[in-house]
Amino acid sequence: MIAIEEARARILAPLRPTGTEMVPLAAACGRVLAGAVLARRTQPPADVSAMDGFAVRAAAAAAGARLRLVGSAPAGHPFAGRIEPGETVAVFTGSLLPEGADAVLIQEDAAREGGEVRVGESVRPGQHVRPRGQDFAAGERLLAPGRRLTARDVGLAAAADHPWIAVHRRPVVAVLATGDEIALPGEEVPAGGIVSSNSHALAALVGAAGGEARVLPIVPDDVEAIAAATERLGAVDLLVTTGGASVGAHDLVREGLARRGLALDFWKVAMRPGKPLMHGRVAGVPLLGLPGNPVSALVCATLFLLPALARLAGETGWALPMETALLGAPLPANDRRADHLRARLEHDAAGRLTVTPFARQDSSLQRLLAEADGLLFRPADAPALAPGAEVPVLRFSNLGI
Amino acid sequence: MIAIEEARARILAPLRPTGTEMVPLAAACGRVLAGAVLARRTQPPADVSAMDGFAVRAAAAAAGARLRLVGSAPAGHPFAGRIEPGETVAVFTGSLLPEGADAVLIQEDAAREGGEVRVGESVRPGQHVRPRGQDFAAGERLLAPGRRLTARDVGLAAAADHPWIAVHRRPVVAVLATGDEIALPGEEVPAGGIVSSNSHALAALVGAAGGEARVLPIVPDDVEAIAAATERLGAVDLLVTTGGASVGAHDLVREGLARRGLALDFWKVAMRPGKPLMHGRVAGVPLLGLPGNPVSALVCATLFLLPALARLAGETGWALPMETALLGAPLPANDRRADHLRARLEHDAAGRLTVTPFARQDSSLQRLLAEADGLLFRPADAPALAPGAEVPVLRFSNLGI
Repeated sequence: MIAIEEARARILAPLRPTGTEMVPLAAACGRVLAGAVLARRTQPPADVSAMDGFAVRAAAAAAGARLRLVGSAPAGHPFAGRIEPGETVAVFTGSLLPEGADAVLIQEDAAREGGEVRVGESVRPGQHVRPRGQDFAAGERLLAPGRRLTARDVGLAAAADHPWIAVHRRPVVAVLATGDEIALPGEEVPAGGIVSSNSHALAALVGAAGGEARVLPIVPDDVEAIAAATERLGAVDLLVTTGGASVGAHDLVREGLARRGLALDFWKVAMRPGKPLMHGRVAGVPLLGLPGNPVSALVCATLFLLPALARLAGETGWALPMETALLGAPLPANDRRADHLRARLEHDAAGRLTVTPFARQDSSLQRLLAEADGLLFRPADAPALAPGAEVPVLRFSNLGI
Repeated sequence: MIAIEEARARILAPLRPTGTEMVPLAAACGRVLAGAVLARRTQPPADVSAMDGFAVRAAAAAAGARLRLVGSAPAGHPFAGRIEPGETVAVFTGSLLPEGADAVLIQEDAAREGGEVRVGESVRPGQHVRPRGQDFAAGERLLAPGRRLTARDVGLAAAADHPWIAVHRRPVVAVLATGDEIALPGEEVPAGGIVSSNSHALAALVGAAGGEARVLPIVPDDVEAIAAATERLGAVDLLVTTGGASVGAHDLVREGLARRGLALDFWKVAMRPGKPLMHGRVAGVPLLGLPGNPVSALVCATLFLLPALARLAGETGWALPMETALLGAPLPANDRRADHLRARLEHDAAGRLTVTPFARQDSSLQRLLAEADGLLFRPADAPALAPGAEVPVLRFSNLGI
């Protein structure tokens, strides 16, 4: 058995970011940048008004002055001429400042009297003016490669005039569930068997993490069938298997994949739920073998598959978004396997995050996994803790799963 | 001007959840349940072994007893016969407990000697057995309507044997950007104009929130054109406009929509950034008119469009995921408009969330919106605060935007 951190490091080590593809900006949200986004324009493109009001030469706009209104320049309709010290032009938020003007007298401080504007408050040079390039200048780097694009980033890339964006191809993950006792939802279930949920849950997790899942047909507990199922995998970035533990942890999957040239790295991790975790490489494809138990599979996927997807997607600086919470119930000391307790996470009246693990933690209770807000992490050999202790937690919602 | 809470309540009041559609389970992650998910099966379907070991009659399995090994029952291959008190059958995690057995002797406590198994530790009735229905029983309600499905929920629905799921149709949001000075990325930009980013940013936000955006062509600042653009809106659940403020807050959009029968509810909210916020109904479609400024538009979309999408999608109990953070810099008192400061959010060494607003908050700085981790909420008339004060914050990542 190896420790979680070592397992994760060994899973990530051989993974390389996928190649680059161009996507329309409208489809880029949630994708990972494959190159920097540089500004193609300067914003604002020239000095512009920050308010509705009147463009003036500040030196000629002391309180009490009267200025001749020589025009109006709504955004998109710049004033063609140049204003002289005694003149003014009506401007609006975003309007280009006319030539000759260096400040804006805001509406509230001005009185319009016929063809004139009376200055109510003296104007300083530069007042209510957004200088050219205040937001960004052409050529500046706005977004770094490796960043997963948010809606705000998409807006920024649009403003910087990018109709197309270079992103990493979505990592393709083949998901292979094995077991004589399982069937897909709606299909006939063998006597005493159960409906397989791992393929669907893992595919959903892969999708939520920005990957593309390829769900393979369920394979029976048969070495030949397992070998055959992985014969024509095609272009996948990662093969994820679940189960194969019905006659000993992963023996069948391991044996089946051995016929495809499996290079096994490790297959046991000191954690709960989910000790049997297999890592290796088969036919040139990295392999992550998850436990067949659905709760164990999902917890292991959270700890190992999500980081793997981030690495494959080229996302930089990704880490599990661990938080600290106040323990809501006493905890016994832990043994040598790191534990991950399904828990309720809430904010108390003072706004502090609290965590209360469910009383029942049996890994067969899939319903409690769905009901959990997150996981309470118990390191190996952690001491007993009293309520109020600070403990590390992971919120599922922070991971989109 | 009305307060944010009132504006939100008035925006949400007329909205009704969309209708129901069936989607394959594999496409259901992130969708909102339109009905309860009931268990179609009992899980486990019978008493099953929780461990690898030997099924026994506990009364006959005291330490030192020898049991005759009469068979093996891997998961998916139940033992056909019935075991008698002196007999045992090899079982594995998930194996059906053979008839006659009431407990499992785990492998570690057993010694196999030829055709016999010697009991190392006495076995209690029910030990290492997962009773039938421990996870759920057929007919039980597993997931409530109005829930947005996670990957874990998808797994549970699979285990409960649902190949199809009834969800609310994705809300369709038409996005209409207006302005003489704007053009879409890659298109020719008018002299002194800028590239429109609102359509893209809002479409991304709508998509991230589970809606479907329909981006309309940009419309010039022209009443007729605005009226024409909304003439054949078709089946949309919400019309979102941006801009139209170039000659006064929303005047043009308002006037254009008036020709389509706009019933205006309100159009000013006491907040910053983004005072001009228009709400009403046009040609039977709810209308949300956002400011043209991209930062203001995104902040207003966060406060008003996201809740509207949750309501339309039928999601129950949705609320902005406000958190409490420790202030990292002093703040001056606020005026009568609630403020939303772009800010850096970090966890300090003790794991506490801290918030530091950017020094510059000019609403024209779109880049700082992309760089922000979240917003610091300053209520109207909030007093000055010293570093270390607890303040309400909103993390963009918690909203997927």
